[in-house]
Amino acid sequence: MPIITLTTDFGLSDGFAGVLKGVIWAIDPEARIADISHLIPPQDILAGAYTLWRAAPFFPPGTVHLAVVDPGVGGERRPLAMDLGEQYFVGPDNGVFTPLMEKAARNHRKVDYVHLTNPEYWLKNVSHTFHGRDIFAPVAAYLAKGVPLSEFGPVLTDPVRLAMSLPEKTDSGWRAHITTIDVFGNLCTDLPAEAIQGGGGLIFRMGRRKVHGLVDSYAQRPAGELVALLNSWGYVEIAVVNGSAARTLGLQRGDSLEVFFQR
Amino acid sequence: MPIITLTTDFGLSDGFAGVLKGVIWAIDPEARIADISHLIPPQDILAGAYTLWRAAPFFPPGTVHLAVVDPGVGGERRPLAMDLGEQYFVGPDNGVFTPLMEKAARNHRKVDYVHLTNPEYWLKNVSHTFHGRDIFAPVAAYLAKGVPLSEFGPVLTDPVRLAMSLPEKTDSGWRAHITTIDVFGNLCTDLPAEAIQGGGGLIFRMGRRKVHGLVDSYAQRPAGELVALLNSWGYVEIAVVNGSAARTLGLQRGDSLEVFFQR
Amino acid sequence: MPIITLTTDFGLSDGFAGVLKGVIWAIDPEARIADISHLIPPQDILAGAYTLWRAAPFFPPGTVHLAVVDPGVGGERRPLAMDLGEQYFVGPDNGVFTPLMEKAARNHRKVDYVHLTNPEYWLKNVSHTFHGRDIFAPVAAYLAKGVPLSEFGPVLTDPVRLAMSLPEKTDSGWRAHITTIDVFGNLCTDLPAEAIQGGGGLIFRMGRRKVHGLVDSYAQRPAGELVALLNSWGYVEIAVVNGSAARTLGLQRGDSLEVFFQR
Repeated sequence: MPIITLTTDFGLSDGFAGVLKGVIWAIDPEARIADISHLIPPQDILAGAYTLWRAAPFFPPGTVHLAVVDPGVGGERRPLAMDLGEQYFVGPDNGVFTPLMEKAARNHRKVDYVHLTNPEYWLKNVSHTFHGRDIFAPVAAYLAKGVPLSEFGPVLTDPVRLAMSLPEKTDSGWRAHITTIDVFGNLCTDLPAEAIQGGGGLIFRMGRRKVHGLVDSYAQRPAGELVALLNSWGYVEIAVVNGSAARTLGLQRGDSLEVFFQR
Repeated sequence: MPIITLTTDFGLSDGFAGVLKGVIWAIDPEARIADISHLIPPQDILAGAYTLWRAAPFFPPGTVHLAVVDPGVGGERRPLAMDLGEQYFVGPDNGVFTPLMEKAARNHRKVDYVHLTNPEYWLKNVSHTFHGRDIFAPVAAYLAKGVPLSEFGPVLTDPVRLAMSLPEKTDSGWRAHITTIDVFGNLCTDLPAEAIQGGGGLIFRMGRRKVHGLVDSYAQRPAGELVALLNSWGYVEIAVVNGSAARTLGLQRGDSLEVFFQR
Repeated sequence: MPIITLTTDFGLSDGFAGVLKGVIWAIDPEARIADISHLIPPQDILAGAYTLWRAAPFFPPGTVHLAVVDPGVGGERRPLAMDLGEQYFVGPDNGVFTPLMEKAARNHRKVDYVHLTNPEYWLKNVSHTFHGRDIFAPVAAYLAKGVPLSEFGPVLTDPVRLAMSLPEKTDSGWRAHITTIDVFGNLCTDLPAEAIQGGGGLIFRMGRRKVHGLVDSYAQRPAGELVALLNSWGYVEIAVVNGSAARTLGLQRGDSLEVFFQR
């Protein structure tokens, strides 16, 4: 009973995500389909990359992940599928899979990429503007049905990678960056738990606001208080208890914060 | 073929609801999953409670309902599962199930509660901030698979209840309160059909606006007219035909209206 | 393994779409359910009509499409089901299926309509305000289960049709109209590809802005450029590369644009 997930910037109004499900079920009626997000900001490849990277590990082996944030559709960007060892990924070769590829590299895991060129596994009429429907959804459905990756096209060895945000070492600690802002207004950073272990008392500085130390959970502080914690993905996060750190601090993705180890 | 429903304040952008589906399907690939809502306002336990209470009766026996509006995550609030006779409910013990518990009490139906303490049915790594993913979703999946409720932890006898809105008897009728405002701007009140049966001509007063009598359906009046009717859940509702009563009247959840029986 | 799709103006907050799934699965636990859209603007029958018309052809034969944009609920408008040859459609007889009916007529395809009058296939208690839940969802589930169309009520021969937007021939080309604006701000028109084939150099004029010729895909032009192209449904579309034509041009559904064949 294969699973296919969908991560797109299609929104929820126009029925485009529904169309993907029709295409998939016409090919593989057994597939279970999970929406991860259709509210990736239009053409924001990086946001799609982070969202899929966070969600994918919680799906079982064999899952096929479809990502369609595809400003280059119909141009020179290649359509891509990859086997990350336990799961498959299908989408445009524009970097939307970068954090997954980097994680695989860190874990010394072999990744197989193919350039999707075999029209046998596409819809009959392929448009210039909706490869999600015409190429990626059918390929995902055939992958879910068990068609081997090599059937879909030749090996691809140079997938596009985006420059990902990384924390910078400073004299007194780290300069971290905001990578994502969630629905609660929590600010997720690029600083992993490992980077601050064994450190003394920590201070986080965002502009003129400071936070001393980490809490374990939002519930440890009263509503409205600004806190820092390790989020459930293992990264430093800045939050306002029952409020929005994004609104309170006026920060955006890419903005930096200073992290000091107090001696 | 078990059914699991999801009611959360996770929003639809960040992929958190998709993660729940991955966790559930990794444990029970047979489960069918229905989103009830992921747009409960952040931390608004009462809104989640009303939404789930309205939807749950339309699902078949055996359904497992997951509710995650959980501002107290990682704190002292207990994780809870309950058997309401025909359906199961899993979520934080913060009152999000109150109207369901009250309905069961009114119907003299026995309810079994357990405090979720058995980590055998959780994800291996339990975070302090995302019990929806790490505790509630796995427990829901194992319940759907047929694991008996008693396996998940000891009996809990004092579940948290929220104070629910109730209509007040007045000299001339009722003071009712707005409990929910739906997407159409219809104002649902806490006044049930039973309370106004056999009454004479009814008058509803919201500030300086009055409505005389009930209509059967929106279609009985021209667009733009303010009407009162019994909604499809059996409660008095104030609506503007093809418009928004919430916008027209400027009312919010908790605001009251006077109901008079004309003699 | 039958498929049922949902197109409604219920929004995603209140749980109404989830309720439809509960009702369907209580009758047909085997049904796969795909959301097409629940964000049709409230009571906007035309928007629902276009959205379903675009999505339906991508679902396999046998699919049952449920459309609930139903301002006339509880009034004189009839509940309807129709067999379009390969797929079924269920909803109010208010014109929401017009473009599908017109397409069937163009293809000389016989369409069978029934007036839903047989309460055997409804929920036991039918409200005056939520036929989506009480009539249409159960009928869709029974259709998906294989109950023949004739079981649901008598033949209906005069279904309501909306006036659909059509391009007008002009001395120098066409006057086209905007039919839908998608999440990217792309402006879809009522001018089909056939109407401009064989034409010389094309000019599209929206107010004081002009676009010369068609591009194949957004990627052929730099970000921010206004372009015209044939979209993936075979209609002329005006777009801004990686931007919003709707915002750039300030146009709305129903607004017109002039199309000239340059000689």
